[in-house]
Amino acid sequence: MRIEKDSLGEKKLSESAPYGINTLRAMENFSLHHKRTNMRLIYAVVKVKKAAALTYCSLQVREKGIYEAIVSACDEILNGKYDDAFATEALQGGAGTSTNMNVNEVVANAALKKLGKNYGQYDIIHPLDDVNRGQSTNDVYPTALRIAAIELLRKLSQACAELQTALQEKENAYEHVHKLGRTEMMDAVPVTVGEEFGAYAQAISRDRWRLYKVEERLRQINLGGTAVGISTNASRQYRFRVIEELRRITDIGLAAAEYPMDITQNNDVFVEVSGLIKALAVNIMKIANDLRLMNSGPQGGLHEIQLQALQQGSTIMPGKVNPVIPEMVMQCAMKVMANDTAITMAAAHGEFELNAFLPLIADSLLESLQLLTEAVIIFRTKCISLLTVNEAQCQYYLDISAAFGANYIQRLGYDTVSRVIKEHVPQEAKHILDRMLEQNSSKIQKRDRDK
Amino acid sequence: MRIEKDSLGEKKLSESAPYGINTLRAMENFSLHHKRTNMRLIYAVVKVKKAAALTYCSLQVREKGIYEAIVSACDEILNGKYDDAFATEALQGGAGTSTNMNVNEVVANAALKKLGKNYGQYDIIHPLDDVNRGQSTNDVYPTALRIAAIELLRKLSQACAELQTALQEKENAYEHVHKLGRTEMMDAVPVTVGEEFGAYAQAISRDRWRLYKVEERLRQINLGGTAVGISTNASRQYRFRVIEELRRITDIGLAAAEYPMDITQNNDVFVEVSGLIKALAVNIMKIANDLRLMNSGPQGGLHEIQLQALQQGSTIMPGKVNPVIPEMVMQCAMKVMANDTAITMAAAHGEFELNAFLPLIADSLLESLQLLTEAVIIFRTKCISLLTVNEAQCQYYLDISAAFGANYIQRLGYDTVSRVIKEHVPQEAKHILDRMLEQNSSKIQKRDRDK
Amino acid sequence: MRIEKDSLGEKKLSESAPYGINTLRAMENFSLHHKRTNMRLIYAVVKVKKAAALTYCSLQVREKGIYEAIVSACDEILNGKYDDAFATEALQGGAGTSTNMNVNEVVANAALKKLGKNYGQYDIIHPLDDVNRGQSTNDVYPTALRIAAIELLRKLSQACAELQTALQEKENAYEHVHKLGRTEMMDAVPVTVGEEFGAYAQAISRDRWRLYKVEERLRQINLGGTAVGISTNASRQYRFRVIEELRRITDIGLAAAEYPMDITQNNDVFVEVSGLIKALAVNIMKIANDLRLMNSGPQGGLHEIQLQALQQGSTIMPGKVNPVIPEMVMQCAMKVMANDTAITMAAAHGEFELNAFLPLIADSLLESLQLLTEAVIIFRTKCISLLTVNEAQCQYYLDISAAFGANYIQRLGYDTVSRVIKEHVPQEAKHILDRMLEQNSSKIQKRDRDK
Amino acid sequence: MRIEKDSLGEKKLSESAPYGINTLRAMENFSLHHKRTNMRLIYAVVKVKKAAALTYCSLQVREKGIYEAIVSACDEILNGKYDDAFATEALQGGAGTSTNMNVNEVVANAALKKLGKNYGQYDIIHPLDDVNRGQSTNDVYPTALRIAAIELLRKLSQACAELQTALQEKENAYEHVHKLGRTEMMDAVPVTVGEEFGAYAQAISRDRWRLYKVEERLRQINLGGTAVGISTNASRQYRFRVIEELRRITDIGLAAAEYPMDITQNNDVFVEVSGLIKALAVNIMKIANDLRLMNSGPQGGLHEIQLQALQQGSTIMPGKVNPVIPEMVMQCAMKVMANDTAITMAAAHGEFELNAFLPLIADSLLESLQLLTEAVIIFRTKCISLLTVNEAQCQYYLDISAAFGANYIQRLGYDTVSRVIKEHVPQEAKHILDRMLEQNSSKIQKRDRDK
Repeated sequence: MRIEKDSLGEKKLSESAPYGINTLRAMENFSLHHKRTNMRLIYAVVKVKKAAALTYCSLQVREKGIYEAIVSACDEILNGKYDDAFATEALQGGAGTSTNMNVNEVVANAALKKLGKNYGQYDIIHPLDDVNRGQSTNDVYPTALRIAAIELLRKLSQACAELQTALQEKENAYEHVHKLGRTEMMDAVPVTVGEEFGAYAQAISRDRWRLYKVEERLRQINLGGTAVGISTNASRQYRFRVIEELRRITDIGLAAAEYPMDITQNNDVFVEVSGLIKALAVNIMKIANDLRLMNSGPQGGLHEIQLQALQQGSTIMPGKVNPVIPEMVMQCAMKVMANDTAITMAAAHGEFELNAFLPLIADSLLESLQLLTEAVIIFRTKCISLLTVNEAQCQYYLDISAAFGANYIQRLGYDTVSRVIKEHVPQEAKHILDRMLEQNSSKIQKRDRDK
Repeated sequence: MRIEKDSLGEKKLSESAPYGINTLRAMENFSLHHKRTNMRLIYAVVKVKKAAALTYCSLQVREKGIYEAIVSACDEILNGKYDDAFATEALQGGAGTSTNMNVNEVVANAALKKLGKNYGQYDIIHPLDDVNRGQSTNDVYPTALRIAAIELLRKLSQACAELQTALQEKENAYEHVHKLGRTEMMDAVPVTVGEEFGAYAQAISRDRWRLYKVEERLRQINLGGTAVGISTNASRQYRFRVIEELRRITDIGLAAAEYPMDITQNNDVFVEVSGLIKALAVNIMKIANDLRLMNSGPQGGLHEIQLQALQQGSTIMPGKVNPVIPEMVMQCAMKVMANDTAITMAAAHGEFELNAFLPLIADSLLESLQLLTEAVIIFRTKCISLLTVNEAQCQYYLDISAAFGANYIQRLGYDTVSRVIKEHVPQEAKHILDRMLEQNSSKIQKRDRDK
Repeated sequence: MRIEKDSLGEKKLSESAPYGINTLRAMENFSLHHKRTNMRLIYAVVKVKKAAALTYCSLQVREKGIYEAIVSACDEILNGKYDDAFATEALQGGAGTSTNMNVNEVVANAALKKLGKNYGQYDIIHPLDDVNRGQSTNDVYPTALRIAAIELLRKLSQACAELQTALQEKENAYEHVHKLGRTEMMDAVPVTVGEEFGAYAQAISRDRWRLYKVEERLRQINLGGTAVGISTNASRQYRFRVIEELRRITDIGLAAAEYPMDITQNNDVFVEVSGLIKALAVNIMKIANDLRLMNSGPQGGLHEIQLQALQQGSTIMPGKVNPVIPEMVMQCAMKVMANDTAITMAAAHGEFELNAFLPLIADSLLESLQLLTEAVIIFRTKCISLLTVNEAQCQYYLDISAAFGANYIQRLGYDTVSRVIKEHVPQEAKHILDRMLEQNSSKIQKRDRDK
Repeated sequence: MRIEKDSLGEKKLSESAPYGINTLRAMENFSLHHKRTNMRLIYAVVKVKKAAALTYCSLQVREKGIYEAIVSACDEILNGKYDDAFATEALQGGAGTSTNMNVNEVVANAALKKLGKNYGQYDIIHPLDDVNRGQSTNDVYPTALRIAAIELLRKLSQACAELQTALQEKENAYEHVHKLGRTEMMDAVPVTVGEEFGAYAQAISRDRWRLYKVEERLRQINLGGTAVGISTNASRQYRFRVIEELRRITDIGLAAAEYPMDITQNNDVFVEVSGLIKALAVNIMKIANDLRLMNSGPQGGLHEIQLQALQQGSTIMPGKVNPVIPEMVMQCAMKVMANDTAITMAAAHGEFELNAFLPLIADSLLESLQLLTEAVIIFRTKCISLLTVNEAQCQYYLDISAAFGANYIQRLGYDTVSRVIKEHVPQEAKHILDRMLEQNSSKIQKRDRDK
């Protein structure tokens, strides 16, 4: 047992606990048993700490060895050695202070260990005075959230690129397979299966473009702005160098925000990112739903495509196979839409110099990014790439439907063609329309000089 | 031109304007060009004014004739004579004060007219001192919103009852038409068309029950609580009688809230009502979507039912007819879901003794109720009641599918039946399974003693 | 290693894996790395299996000992012995089939172990033919979800009861402390601190009533309806007894739905429950926000109450203490609102005889219930119960404001009082109004005969 | 009375009705009494018709005078002459077919009138064969929606530019007024009023950038793609020229989509636009809420700023003035957020070659754009520009609070400063800390070599 103190009093901690009193209080206070703080966010905070420590190494702020130990500690944490030490709840009060303190304490203790000291010897390395030096939760946390978001956006973007490729492969493979196009669930005009997959690919390509462009706005960080964006306690030298270090560590083109106070209090950029990935969610939901419809059957549905059988579909109906991947994908998409609601509400509820609800934004956004990335990958590998087209079935619907109707209206007039199709079954109607065309060709030419 | 004054200064009004300076300021301030305050809400406020005036008549608060004129004025307004005088925007600041003032001023002026006086002679009848006597926007407006909501809930409930009947008629009409049941869009087991409509009817019946039960909670009103629910400026006699009068006027079993301060500041009941009608929206969306799917085709879809053709479906594809009513119904349902988001956000954002965002709650809730009522009526009259079933098509899918599979598993085991169905087309599979059943009947009996 | 087969082929499983091939495929297919299926749902499914097994014991369906072993296996699982064996993702395709199969397989294997057999000897006890006998995911899963929801609703209800009590304690403790009432953030009229807490308590009491009443509708279950609600493969005796057994096991007054097909395909009841707990979320969000405002300061805010200091509030601003519990509570409330969006979308997207998106509904609803329960408990124990009122500060605002204004309008008229208050500081205004009252008392009496 | 026919039968129309049978059927079918189709959308459809007619003029498709009359008719409609003829409901089934037909019929009839003919003489000018020539609702309607959206985005962008300027004027006017910065509603560190308005301005500037950039993506149109994007019935010459004409008419840099089939069926771009304006809504909601808080009082709140009094605030509390414009703005913002929910659901629900729910998307998006534009303008003119700062009050809070604390931690250590501030009132604490600083200056310098 060791004892730690803060301005509220003392707490006992296990000797082996690499976190400290602030973390312990946070675990006790926010005992929701819901979900831990996202590890990507924790690591991003550690990267900020490392950048700061490297800066202070070069500025020689404390005696040699101190900040070097902090840097090493950060590396150990980033290698996963202390993962269990980050046990605060995702939905915490305090605008992320507990997450920042959790990292400060673990970094300090891990560094103390590096120096051969014991956990808790904060007179040597202090979580706040040293690890958090020149920082505040209010610049560290939003900066870390941006880093984590960009890292995940890049993965999502990559997953989308691969999905687009997979869709384009289907576009090419089936470019000559004709099928019935449908609007409002009703028979419309002939299209090709390839064209449909091409349209899906195009939508995903637009999503990629959006994800790519939004990174720009996320790269503006308020690090160095500290408490409210006006750089209380952060020296000019530190502020200048720390972002450079962080850029190097993260391999992201981060830049100091022109107006850090804005970034500290306004979270519209996360609403923007969430809105954009919601647009992606809408697209994959639409594709997944189309595939469900085309796969429906096998006898009593459209059955134009065949999704790969991945598992038995029923505990009571033998032989039944369900479109489980599109179903999973659609649920992930809906979850992303729901998370967008949370992000919007939290962002809209900020007051004055800070938004107290940033942890909900962080958790929802990172979850959406991770979930969508996994969903997109699974969608590609377990569904899109494995599906096949029932070409005969596609042709069959085309043959029996009146999808040819639109071709006649410029020459026979909308009203005439409508009437014929309404009064006869498709094949008869086609025959009649063809005969009318022969008979009326001179008359038509008079009215219509269009090529 | 006449001139009216308030504590902010003077404004010119047209001689013929039956509203006053407060209304004019509200129209100028909230010039959104969006949408007027819901007329149902206005009328409900007028009913409150009438109840108050009747109360003061009997309490003989002012000289004979004054409150009698106010009562008459209210009746004229309720007959639609002054509809144009209520032109404030729905989304107004001030928690409904402008709506209340608009009514106070029109009632006062209409009453003055009754007495042969001119608009604006407020020394005789004052919008605040007389019409609003013993009231505050903060008790009048929430009370009126409850009245308007109950009136609309009753209409919606009636519309649901009729929808349920229409669905049950289809249930009876098609109780012997067998069709393929589908789960997750895949062929499942045989059901009847009648059973499907019966399930729809059952869901709507549950909605009716909910709508009926929630009225109870809406009937608790804070009238008499005035500004913050503690009855500032409202005499005991007035408070007692006014609710009785209002009950008579509205024919609703309104009751004084036990704790008016609660009702004045908390709007969870509107979130509750919105949540319940959202459950109805979910049900009609599901039914409408099923009908779209069953109606799909006519050749390249399920085509199990035939919706009535109501209008030409395309400007380019002749003969195309679309399921326009289910499409309209689904959009109305989505709109109700969206309004629920607005209501939730507004209700969650209240502070202290009042919620400043009540006008958004009012507008969204009343719109949802009206829209859903109309949608349910149209759904019944133009879609459900007119649809017919393509019985041959229903039978066809049943004949060609493997929907019989589940019947064999208790006697042959899930694994065996699955394998057979997987390896053969449905009709062959059925044949094989029947033969296995004959051969194995003794073995089966040993294992399975279940009746 | 052992090998299991299904209709899609073979898979290798570890000898020690208590689950089977269906579970393994599900883990591979839905590899989202997001979140496991809620354990409360798993346990509820196990309770259904136990009820079925007890039924088959009494019906003597198989040789003595088989279903008895299954019952024992269920008990072991319910005691937590096999928790690790339930590793499928929450957001799974297949409408819950994987969860049901996961339970079927673990129950079968645990029962085999009981009998001294090895995992995988399904010829003795088969996951589907025996454990799932007479059942389908489509009746088991919605039934289990209702059970889990009711169990959690009761906990939530209990938490609300305790919160109400805590609020009433504050109501009593501070019934004589006068403070400034505020509407739209502006000074209004005097109230007491006790009245405010009373209003909060009243709102929570309404929530309890709602939670209590909705249980009724959740108690209608479709167990025995199997695949689509028409009892395919479920014998009459089984259907009759299984619900009785389940009622006994769960201690919930479950009842067979009148129309199981409705319950199988329609999920409006979960939308209803979600809507009701959203109303609770709105109430606690409002209370939490009020407390934040009243606690604001300590010097530059209202500071009418003092929340207990629970942790240091800033890594850069020494001595700062934040309202971390209200902040956490508000985020939990927003999360519940977001989950409601997911539930609504999923419920609205069902088709035909089943809703494929039920796992999203289940996960979101159970999460909301659990999260809200914990939040309400923490809110009470760490915030409401510990807060104190700064009585002097409350009195101070009352003394310096013009909250007295409303008291004069019935005697001096709204316009007069407004003008005086607008032109003078509050204390002067009060003096002037008092003097006017004395002078005008005769005149007032003439106009106003109201008591 | 005149009679018109379509494939469903005959309808009587008034001689003076400039619309035709399709419009009449739409009015009867979608009789929601909710809201008309947005006039901006109608006009945009008319612009498409005009561009097509100009194209056919130059292609000399029909005898001279026909398409010239159609062009004139379009101009008349755009001048408002036929506004009353567009009475179809906003929430219509048919994916916008009724709106397109409404325009086709009114254009045809207006053109017939131009030629001295009667309404309904469609053998001369036919709504479909002539006005809709080479078009389909499915390319006309999404194109028109993009045009209407861009026109409104530009207005919104202009309104934001002006808002930004107004905020920057306040930034400049109050750059030297110090005030207390607050995080999580608690006293934090000193800032200036100017800085706060600067942060608001910065956020709005980011919104402008987003609105500007998204226009690019909206400019891709599928006109010429007709029914499903593969140009059925649209000649190459027409397709080439019509976009050029439309570009000229609208003054928007419209471009043919690379893959019209994508644009015809996917509506993610509207989700994107809605998401971006939701980010703006979040920003103005945050600003409006801050202003409400700063304006709170006048005695019992912060009262750091003074919003202009615009109307009397209460019907019972004389002299009360409420922050009605921020309240209105916040409700508009919430409405935009709610509309985003509708747009997302509708966009996610599309199937195959078309989204049947586009009318809901159109109505919600255009409403959001219009509402937000008006709200931003009113916010600027009636609130931001007119507000003043109570400088003495700002200074007062700064003087009495412990906002100085952060300045000491780098030299005295976080723990020491925290303790002092916790144990003393602010002014005492400051005194003690200053003395400690003097005494410890040598020790501090040793530990801390940072500038």
